[in-house]
Amino acid sequence: MSNHPASNRLSAIRDVMKEKKVDSLLISSQDNRRYLSGFAGSAGYLFITQQDAVLATDFRYVEQAGRQAPAYRVVRIASGLDWFTDLLAEAKVKDLGFEADDMTVATHQRLTQKLKETHGAGDTVTMAPLTGVADEIRTVKDAEELKLLQRAIDISDRAMDQVAPTIEPGVTEVEVAWRLERAMREMGAEGPSFDTIVGSGPNGALPHHRAGERPIQRGEPIVIDMGAKYQGYCSDLTRTITIGSHDDTFRKVYDIVLGAQLTAMSLVKPGIPGAEADGYARKVIEEAGYGENFGHSLGHGVGLAIHEYPGVGPTSQGILKEGMVFTIEPGIYLSGWGGVRIEDVVLLGKNGAKTLSKAKKSGKLKA
Amino acid sequence: MSNHPASNRLSAIRDVMKEKKVDSLLISSQDNRRYLSGFAGSAGYLFITQQDAVLATDFRYVEQAGRQAPAYRVVRIASGLDWFTDLLAEAKVKDLGFEADDMTVATHQRLTQKLKETHGAGDTVTMAPLTGVADEIRTVKDAEELKLLQRAIDISDRAMDQVAPTIEPGVTEVEVAWRLERAMREMGAEGPSFDTIVGSGPNGALPHHRAGERPIQRGEPIVIDMGAKYQGYCSDLTRTITIGSHDDTFRKVYDIVLGAQLTAMSLVKPGIPGAEADGYARKVIEEAGYGENFGHSLGHGVGLAIHEYPGVGPTSQGILKEGMVFTIEPGIYLSGWGGVRIEDVVLLGKNGAKTLSKAKKSGKLKA
Repeated sequence: MSNHPASNRLSAIRDVMKEKKVDSLLISSQDNRRYLSGFAGSAGYLFITQQDAVLATDFRYVEQAGRQAPAYRVVRIASGLDWFTDLLAEAKVKDLGFEADDMTVATHQRLTQKLKETHGAGDTVTMAPLTGVADEIRTVKDAEELKLLQRAIDISDRAMDQVAPTIEPGVTEVEVAWRLERAMREMGAEGPSFDTIVGSGPNGALPHHRAGERPIQRGEPIVIDMGAKYQGYCSDLTRTITIGSHDDTFRKVYDIVLGAQLTAMSLVKPGIPGAEADGYARKVIEEAGYGENFGHSLGHGVGLAIHEYPGVGPTSQGILKEGMVFTIEPGIYLSGWGGVRIEDVVLLGKNGAKTLSKAKKSGKLKA
Repeated sequence: MSNHPASNRLSAIRDVMKEKKVDSLLISSQDNRRYLSGFAGSAGYLFITQQDAVLATDFRYVEQAGRQAPAYRVVRIASGLDWFTDLLAEAKVKDLGFEADDMTVATHQRLTQKLKETHGAGDTVTMAPLTGVADEIRTVKDAEELKLLQRAIDISDRAMDQVAPTIEPGVTEVEVAWRLERAMREMGAEGPSFDTIVGSGPNGALPHHRAGERPIQRGEPIVIDMGAKYQGYCSDLTRTITIGSHDDTFRKVYDIVLGAQLTAMSLVKPGIPGAEADGYARKVIEEAGYGENFGHSLGHGVGLAIHEYPGVGPTSQGILKEGMVFTIEPGIYLSGWGGVRIEDVVLLGKNGAKTLSKAKKSGKLKA
């Protein structure tokens, strides 16, 4: 029990509850439910007090919940909301924090209505909207998480290195995306962590582009952004390559982006805000004259979600801490020509970043 | 323009707005946004009045939105919520319906706060929580949707017929799931419409089971439940097979389930509540003595979502109408032995159901 990662995570969320001054907490989001309990099913709530931890789920998941969430008492949800008011009455709480950034207005209405009916006026539980409660804790990864993240990262690295050399002129973007996804699955991934992006030539400059029917051509930049999901954890990797010879723009832009990435990787350290890390790379790109062509953030946290805290962008005020895992992915996008983006996942240690991805990083695929 | 399916759908939602007495409507859910506008991007809102139709989305999607949603005026969302109050002020509306079953409490709070700041007391727009507004319209499929649904259905049918004969004793459930997903992708699917279920032997009786490392054995029931996604539309297909000889239980249970399915398919017609359709199959299973072993609904609507209206379960009071598309999937589950479920998608015509799936329906895979 005490070795189950959920025990430490429960202590951490209980500290947040004290800080937010709520004596109970209802967790509805799937990622936070999984993180705090270990339960990977797709439906259920966590109800947490300082004394108790309950996982309420329906008949389909009761057995699985008991197995995956040993730190929790499993309660079966039947139809209706009696389970909800029963838990509140039993715990004798006065206020209930809930995830306002996850719960819909309709669910909130049903719960407050049920509270009114059950308790009557003058004896109600106050529902307190909270945001980011577990998400903040999730930014610092524990040993169990780092192991799973590394597995996900290794899979996308190997898939990239295996598939990239198979790209020949005339192959379509969707075919490349499919080869990558197939390779990741065959290496043990549950699936891709997001829709694979293959942006060839001008498509690489379009921020919404995923992968289309365009045949890839010799010499043009090909942006490949992909990731694997392994036991719930996501990887995220971008490489930009060309087939055969490439133009002068490519070599120039590629080196600037790589320089910006390596600069940020070598300077980032605990104690600075995300915006400062973003600035390390942005300055390199700006000084090279491409500031207007780097229209997104330097990076983002990655874990159970493909995009999570911490933010690593121009306006990110949150402080980066030891144990955080995030991407460093500068890019330059030239309308009509294409884009270059290079992305790796790093773990922030006491003295700086350790790069967790190992996929080859050479802009030129083959002669 | 008038031929774009969004035009008819806009008329339909404007009728719903009149019925619900709101002079404007904010659509936030991805499926409803896509259905009502044609826009397939992952972010944005629709703002609809009797006179105007606006698609508000960020810079990444502005070009795509203009191309995919010709019936809408595209407005670019910048940071902040000025776009929201600007649209309301311009339209001079008094109330705004919103999707309470999609919008989070936090988003609702941000919007109402912005309204207060902008309009001041006494001059505010009332936000009216609505549920199922577009979802009801989506139950009856138009010609364009039927074409896409049929493509999705054809893909999963062919994948099932291609992969099922390749299952040999010793192959794991996840390997079979992967073969099916790979086949669907190679036939043009965007991906699976949900995580493929392969439940062999006792696993077939567990309602939460997806696909695990269990090697499939000769003679046991294998429940395969899968679907493809094609241009946003989902298919859903279940077959139960065995390799080689099977036991008497299988033959008995299989025939009861098939009989229940064929009964429901032949009796269902427009004008009855979903519960009556459910009852046609349930009665067959109950009379055979297995009523306790059919623990789920007979079916559900399918379209842009894998589970949508209409409900076809024991408590579904909604009336089935001509043009609705839904699954008919009775099952019998015996703890420790396994399960049998047979599922097809049907289109309800004036005189009854037409089965859209054509995958082979024989419990015995090969001798």
